[in-house]
Amino acid sequence: MTANAPILAIDIGGTKLAAAVVDEQGGVMSRGEIPTPSSAVADTLIELAKTVLGNERPRTIGLASAGPLDMVAGTVSPVNIPSWRDFPLCDTVAEAFPGAETVLVGDAVAAAVGEHWRGAGAGAEAMLGIVVSTGVGGGLVLRGRAYPGPTGNAGHFGHMPTDLEPVLCACGMTGCVEALGSGPSMVRWAAQFGWRGASAKELADDARAGDSVARAAFDRAADALACGIVGAAALVDLDVVVIGGGVAAAGPVLLDPLRAHLKRRASLGFVQRVKALPGTLGRDAGLIGAARCALEI
Amino acid sequence: MTANAPILAIDIGGTKLAAAVVDEQGGVMSRGEIPTPSSAVADTLIELAKTVLGNERPRTIGLASAGPLDMVAGTVSPVNIPSWRDFPLCDTVAEAFPGAETVLVGDAVAAAVGEHWRGAGAGAEAMLGIVVSTGVGGGLVLRGRAYPGPTGNAGHFGHMPTDLEPVLCACGMTGCVEALGSGPSMVRWAAQFGWRGASAKELADDARAGDSVARAAFDRAADALACGIVGAAALVDLDVVVIGGGVAAAGPVLLDPLRAHLKRRASLGFVQRVKALPGTLGRDAGLIGAARCALEI
Repeated sequence: MTANAPILAIDIGGTKLAAAVVDEQGGVMSRGEIPTPSSAVADTLIELAKTVLGNERPRTIGLASAGPLDMVAGTVSPVNIPSWRDFPLCDTVAEAFPGAETVLVGDAVAAAVGEHWRGAGAGAEAMLGIVVSTGVGGGLVLRGRAYPGPTGNAGHFGHMPTDLEPVLCACGMTGCVEALGSGPSMVRWAAQFGWRGASAKELADDARAGDSVARAAFDRAADALACGIVGAAALVDLDVVVIGGGVAAAGPVLLDPLRAHLKRRASLGFVQRVKALPGTLGRDAGLIGAARCALEI
Repeated sequence: MTANAPILAIDIGGTKLAAAVVDEQGGVMSRGEIPTPSSAVADTLIELAKTVLGNERPRTIGLASAGPLDMVAGTVSPVNIPSWRDFPLCDTVAEAFPGAETVLVGDAVAAAVGEHWRGAGAGAEAMLGIVVSTGVGGGLVLRGRAYPGPTGNAGHFGHMPTDLEPVLCACGMTGCVEALGSGPSMVRWAAQFGWRGASAKELADDARAGDSVARAAFDRAADALACGIVGAAALVDLDVVVIGGGVAAAGPVLLDPLRAHLKRRASLGFVQRVKALPGTLGRDAGLIGAARCALEI
């Protein structure tokens, strides 16, 4: 609990739980990760955090979690962790580490804040961080700091409407950015046109090798992402969009058509200035951002 | 220049110039308005302001102007005031009223701030104010205060893409909210289907009287506005949307279909909670908001 005591950062997703000790400059000092278990999630998480901490006691704890979540109540109900519904994450963690303050944010907000603090978005006043993966998530940094919004749900970039195609979205609507821009959506679309593969990673490999259906699948997804980015830029006057996540790891096969569609769609000068950059922190973005959010409180 | 000296508020549009003395509670103490002249705009504006002030000397001056504008340089280039290009508005006004501080914001931002301070958006933490008129403008209030964005252009709601129809927009793109949601767009669309009228006001009268083409024209515009609002709500976690402007003055013929489309399009809980409310300040919203922005600096 001294001024130099470390920050404990935790990142909770449906696939993995991660914890790290982070210093005040955003450096990751120690880190651990484990697949999300189907039961005893909280016990597993606390054990992971204690292992990462070793003999240290955290001064403050930044918690990033998949949503939905309730920042005020400190509870989370991650879609892919069915045993947690309105789970009192802040209280549970605070009990395990007495004396430490806890701060809860959405995982995509944390990832955006991480990329803003120590990654591709450094120095931006207004930044959107997007995560293109099984879904399409997002988080905003406005006036240089996390903008979670009144309910903690700001940055739901994946559920901005596009109306490009009436594709059903996981949220129940049609035509959301996520409905067209996610990895599974690309794979399903390509399969309709005869592509024989199973994953977005294979699709990226084939696109890189010149397969025309695979390239068209990335182009279609990139246009949906560009549509959302232009809308976001018009609304909040973005400096930078930082793109991370498993599908974004495909690199130029996604980024090149994305930049082309952004150029085509952006007509106002302040929208044209938006830079689309790949994230540089990879899987650590959420941990580093959770630590930053803990420091800002 | 005492603590009780008044705030001078100025609202500059292509159609009219308005000035008012506003007190610290947002009450309009005196007010004047004049059609925007084709030449000597600055002289006319300063004269109007002096008339409104009478014997008072302003402590601070809030300037709302049609865009584009450059908040940092204090210059404006309103599309419909061709004689002003990079016009040094802040310097010109400051020279006329020595000792007073000037604050410049976009007119739609000012209108949003006005409705938040003293109108329909009071108490909201995250609010979008939209103005549906010859164009479709917007301004954001986030964390309870004006959010102009890094370049002062945040809130360009009218240029969020919808892709509902490939209608050309004034900005050069197609399918923007404004391209489908503005008064002239409604009138043009209705004319294609045999409606014989000239103005959005006539169209509203006919819609109110039950004319099916006029009603469909409002429905189509309302859907484009709803598409933009759902995108904005997903992104910044809005509490309230306040709708003003000449076309919005049509009342339920616009608001009813707008609320129906919002209900149909909103799937996530935090998006469903957004309230769409008519503005209550009318033409004074920009003046009151300009005064508030001057106070906040």
